[in-house]
Amino acid sequence: MSSSILTRAIGATAALAILATAAVAQDVVPGAEVVEEAVEVAASTAVPADGQFVFNTLLFLIGGFLVMWMAAGFAMLEAGMVRSKNVSMQCLKNIALYSIAGLMFWVIGYNLMYEGVGGGFFGTPIPKDIPDPALDTGDYAAASDWFFQMVFAATTASIVSGTIAERTKLWPFLIFVAILTGVLYPITGSWQWGEGWLYEMGFSDFAGSTLVHSVGGWAALTGALIIGARADKYSAEGRVNPLPGSSMPLATLGTFILWLGWFGFNGGSQLAMGTIEDASSVARIFVNTNLAAAAGVVTAMLLCQAIYKKVDLTIALNGALAGLVAITAEPLAPSVPVAIFVGAIGGAIVVFAVPLLDKLKIDDVVGAIPVHLFAGIWGTMAVPISNADTYFSVQAIGVLAYGAFTVVASAIVWYALKLTMGVRVSKEEERVGLDKHEVGVEAYPEFAGAGRA
Amino acid sequence: MSSSILTRAIGATAALAILATAAVAQDVVPGAEVVEEAVEVAASTAVPADGQFVFNTLLFLIGGFLVMWMAAGFAMLEAGMVRSKNVSMQCLKNIALYSIAGLMFWVIGYNLMYEGVGGGFFGTPIPKDIPDPALDTGDYAAASDWFFQMVFAATTASIVSGTIAERTKLWPFLIFVAILTGVLYPITGSWQWGEGWLYEMGFSDFAGSTLVHSVGGWAALTGALIIGARADKYSAEGRVNPLPGSSMPLATLGTFILWLGWFGFNGGSQLAMGTIEDASSVARIFVNTNLAAAAGVVTAMLLCQAIYKKVDLTIALNGALAGLVAITAEPLAPSVPVAIFVGAIGGAIVVFAVPLLDKLKIDDVVGAIPVHLFAGIWGTMAVPISNADTYFSVQAIGVLAYGAFTVVASAIVWYALKLTMGVRVSKEEERVGLDKHEVGVEAYPEFAGAGRA
Amino acid sequence: MSSSILTRAIGATAALAILATAAVAQDVVPGAEVVEEAVEVAASTAVPADGQFVFNTLLFLIGGFLVMWMAAGFAMLEAGMVRSKNVSMQCLKNIALYSIAGLMFWVIGYNLMYEGVGGGFFGTPIPKDIPDPALDTGDYAAASDWFFQMVFAATTASIVSGTIAERTKLWPFLIFVAILTGVLYPITGSWQWGEGWLYEMGFSDFAGSTLVHSVGGWAALTGALIIGARADKYSAEGRVNPLPGSSMPLATLGTFILWLGWFGFNGGSQLAMGTIEDASSVARIFVNTNLAAAAGVVTAMLLCQAIYKKVDLTIALNGALAGLVAITAEPLAPSVPVAIFVGAIGGAIVVFAVPLLDKLKIDDVVGAIPVHLFAGIWGTMAVPISNADTYFSVQAIGVLAYGAFTVVASAIVWYALKLTMGVRVSKEEERVGLDKHEVGVEAYPEFAGAGRA
Repeated sequence: MSSSILTRAIGATAALAILATAAVAQDVVPGAEVVEEAVEVAASTAVPADGQFVFNTLLFLIGGFLVMWMAAGFAMLEAGMVRSKNVSMQCLKNIALYSIAGLMFWVIGYNLMYEGVGGGFFGTPIPKDIPDPALDTGDYAAASDWFFQMVFAATTASIVSGTIAERTKLWPFLIFVAILTGVLYPITGSWQWGEGWLYEMGFSDFAGSTLVHSVGGWAALTGALIIGARADKYSAEGRVNPLPGSSMPLATLGTFILWLGWFGFNGGSQLAMGTIEDASSVARIFVNTNLAAAAGVVTAMLLCQAIYKKVDLTIALNGALAGLVAITAEPLAPSVPVAIFVGAIGGAIVVFAVPLLDKLKIDDVVGAIPVHLFAGIWGTMAVPISNADTYFSVQAIGVLAYGAFTVVASAIVWYALKLTMGVRVSKEEERVGLDKHEVGVEAYPEFAGAGRA
Repeated sequence: MSSSILTRAIGATAALAILATAAVAQDVVPGAEVVEEAVEVAASTAVPADGQFVFNTLLFLIGGFLVMWMAAGFAMLEAGMVRSKNVSMQCLKNIALYSIAGLMFWVIGYNLMYEGVGGGFFGTPIPKDIPDPALDTGDYAAASDWFFQMVFAATTASIVSGTIAERTKLWPFLIFVAILTGVLYPITGSWQWGEGWLYEMGFSDFAGSTLVHSVGGWAALTGALIIGARADKYSAEGRVNPLPGSSMPLATLGTFILWLGWFGFNGGSQLAMGTIEDASSVARIFVNTNLAAAAGVVTAMLLCQAIYKKVDLTIALNGALAGLVAITAEPLAPSVPVAIFVGAIGGAIVVFAVPLLDKLKIDDVVGAIPVHLFAGIWGTMAVPISNADTYFSVQAIGVLAYGAFTVVASAIVWYALKLTMGVRVSKEEERVGLDKHEVGVEAYPEFAGAGRA
Repeated sequence: MSSSILTRAIGATAALAILATAAVAQDVVPGAEVVEEAVEVAASTAVPADGQFVFNTLLFLIGGFLVMWMAAGFAMLEAGMVRSKNVSMQCLKNIALYSIAGLMFWVIGYNLMYEGVGGGFFGTPIPKDIPDPALDTGDYAAASDWFFQMVFAATTASIVSGTIAERTKLWPFLIFVAILTGVLYPITGSWQWGEGWLYEMGFSDFAGSTLVHSVGGWAALTGALIIGARADKYSAEGRVNPLPGSSMPLATLGTFILWLGWFGFNGGSQLAMGTIEDASSVARIFVNTNLAAAAGVVTAMLLCQAIYKKVDLTIALNGALAGLVAITAEPLAPSVPVAIFVGAIGGAIVVFAVPLLDKLKIDDVVGAIPVHLFAGIWGTMAVPISNADTYFSVQAIGVLAYGAFTVVASAIVWYALKLTMGVRVSKEEERVGLDKHEVGVEAYPEFAGAGRA
């Protein structure tokens, strides 16, 4: 009787006991060799299979609710960065996009992204009987995986809403969100996390610097180019009008929420927590994620001080986010100094990219393009620094492929919306603020100037 | 020696080992039958008893802190929905009610609600030595259960504070809260979760659409009727004055906080997480809860657009909450499409009930009656759609019983307070704002118009 | 072959199986005694070693992200308590101090605080291979412990920023933070949590009433004395100008965030969750922590009402925080009534200490000195009430030692900063607000009066 087969089938201590029983049954005295092997096998202290299932499911649920919370972070960040006349609209877009992302990812997205998870394209069949023979992998609850993947799709949509704020109509934006989260994000996501062609090539993106953040960034950039800048952002003489956001504490709160949520975003992407190795990896990811963000803040602040003799709070906040985006492609492999380096460059990107976009007259209300697109590309290209199994060339192919597809597909959708319903509010509506016409609720009705600035 | 008795007593692999030892001791050779049975028993991969205890306790603690966080959600929602002259009062009421709920639920509520958990009515004896032979069920830490149940009592009180905002005195309101969380909620709660008469009849309310949300809603409705509308809400000619809330981003933040907290509210109500079945159920509950809320948002938005040609942000936010309340009575049994349906009807209820209440001149500042009472009734009545063990008739009996008791008991308390201390501030105080007289701290002292609108 | 040695080495059921095997190997029939012992040993239902590792790591990660979230709580509390002309600066200081604390605690703090955790003073070597023979204790992931300890260092710095708001320069403050979190806090922390001289004496501070809160409070007090009061706080005639904070809902939100985070702060300080005993202890800590805070709120409110005939919201909020700080020194041992008593005295301290500081012309913008220093001392001295292994005398020695060191060391740093770069902004800058000169971003640019009040 082979002890190794038994061990795999029923666990170490049980196998040992059976060996003993079998020995008795055969009335033979096992040699010293068998006893030694038995001791070795029995020394396992592993979590039983059901315990691993529970731990892994719990990681998805905790990670998932933390990433869900990021939807509130984007809402607050954007509510703080737009002018008060557009704050209600920005709040509405954010709760609506999170809702639509969930519904669309259930209707079609999840099935499109992951091969073999469902029986068709319409409606992910969340298994009712657990374990479901068709769906359950045996490692975690299928529903917990769906929840965790869904909040990533929602994050992609959140990135878009900030860039094109203050001039984009409600419903065309939401139709774009439905297509992005139901079709575009899942198609490109399938290339890597669905184990498609980029996965086979050896592309690596641990938690989504490219799959989530750059994709959101490309869609935002395409939208910004097609929709155009806010009426009063760039004067005919080339002057840049700053149009400051209405509430810095809300923008700060949003950034802290995103930072908190990112522990779920990156930590949960370990996908398992039921062994010493996996739990330790999640812990490492927490440390690297946190210090990359910290390095992004400090770098952005120091550069700001050096260049402008002041520290722009919004640059510091975006420095944190850029550090987080940058480390997202590989939060596990780097040593702490490398994680700090990756985050610091993210923070530097913000300082230099924000004025660059203004020079190009690309109007990005919250700075999402530097943060999610540029820092996302940087993070993806930086993976080979710490992960020896990856190549710059393959990372570059991935970055370009995601960019090309998302720009072309987004452009088609944005243009189709422009030609049919129109994506941009009227000049008068933009001047008065979007809250009045489409939402009918002012954000701060009592404060003088609100809705009239 | 019976292997099944041994197994129950000490666990599968241990039993097997003992069988082997015993065989040796008796110097008998076990037959093939015994070996086969031993293999079967040893194949168990279950979480050991202590591990289940830890998982279950952890579920209560995580679920509990998420529901505790809902207290902040109500505070922000209400702070955003009242006018700035009453914002400090609303903040004060919310932190005070959460504090009082905890103290009262410890002093008397918990013992009143759950039979046999304590030795008397005054002071739940949280066990010091674990496991405590008198209190510990063996499945989870008694203190974790207390914490989880306490935050539900606090939620019930939070629901009341929003409806009767902007005209209710501080201390009478807090006395009502003390009675509600210490006595009224526990009495009716005992009917079902204390395994009382409704439980015996087969009534079903998984996480509290009726026990928490409708009870809070009934108490709020009774209060609104007895206290009356705000002075400037309904003109003599029957015009409805909208009195818009002071901060839409805070109302949005509050809604996102509540949505996040609801994963703990519904997920934690599975009450266990130490097996594959329980962990998978918690995951299913997350998915259904999230998509019911999403459906509430989208339905409310579409109806708003169709009827009013605008999308009122506050209706969208309340659509999310109504979807959440509706799915709370049964978040586990429904398939995803049924969960979406239940949430969507919740969202529709908000769109139609808010103007209805205004027609009836019932002044509900935050819309808590449509959200918590009406959607709570709907969710409770919808349980039999997906849960075959329940009956519409029994659900209806439960809804009526909770309504009758809570309305009568609340009315007695509100009237007693009205006759003794008075529950309503003076007209002058209402005009100037509650912050000035009773709190002494303006919410936004620097912003023109604040405190004077 | 000794069964007890085997048991310790490889776990109970495995040991039993090996005993059986060995018996067979030796062809001896074990006596009834061996069988009895074997049954006893095998009856264990303990979590396997790897499971305990995962649970403990998870406790550090959940506790850690909750305490990280407290950084947002301090940011919101302080943003709400300063005038709008200084809000952006306060937000910037808070995200910067959290970032710097993380980097400094990695660079030097952690190694300084805990003996033997690293190979040197520069750069905590977070182990890459898990378990790392040099660093891994076997009980939890080293990185999770680092993360949990780091957020405590950050909390210490957060306490300082509120007291000295509205007049302290950005960069000197951040240099103070770097020294506090990298050197001062770790040195004094090592006395107790690094198992140094106070630990050996029997001093007890479960989660940091003294180590974190008093240390932060002492550093804040020293700063307030050296930097001086705000220009317009105390008139020459001895009148106290209240200078009300700009946003009470943000201050309330901050308090709720801190309350939520405190479950991680105190609960995580149990340091383990993998046994029934530890999980039950964490649950007890949740209950005591929550009810101490609740008692702080209610006590502060009742005293306020009795003395001033109004309930100042900021006093109620600080009552919650003082209750939390007070219970932090010993959240496990007290019975619920004792926990309520400890928290209630904390709340009372706030009511009496806030005007006392004003009488002494110590200008503490957010009330951090009463909350963190005075309630921290009270909580530390109250430990012997419930913990029989502690002595008032030793607790007093600890309180004095932490005070003496922190005051002297902070004073040296503050004076060095004052003499070199200066710590206080110019009178003109203070009048105009710190946001304009050093940050360049107004917090509420559209609201009349903002930045000009």
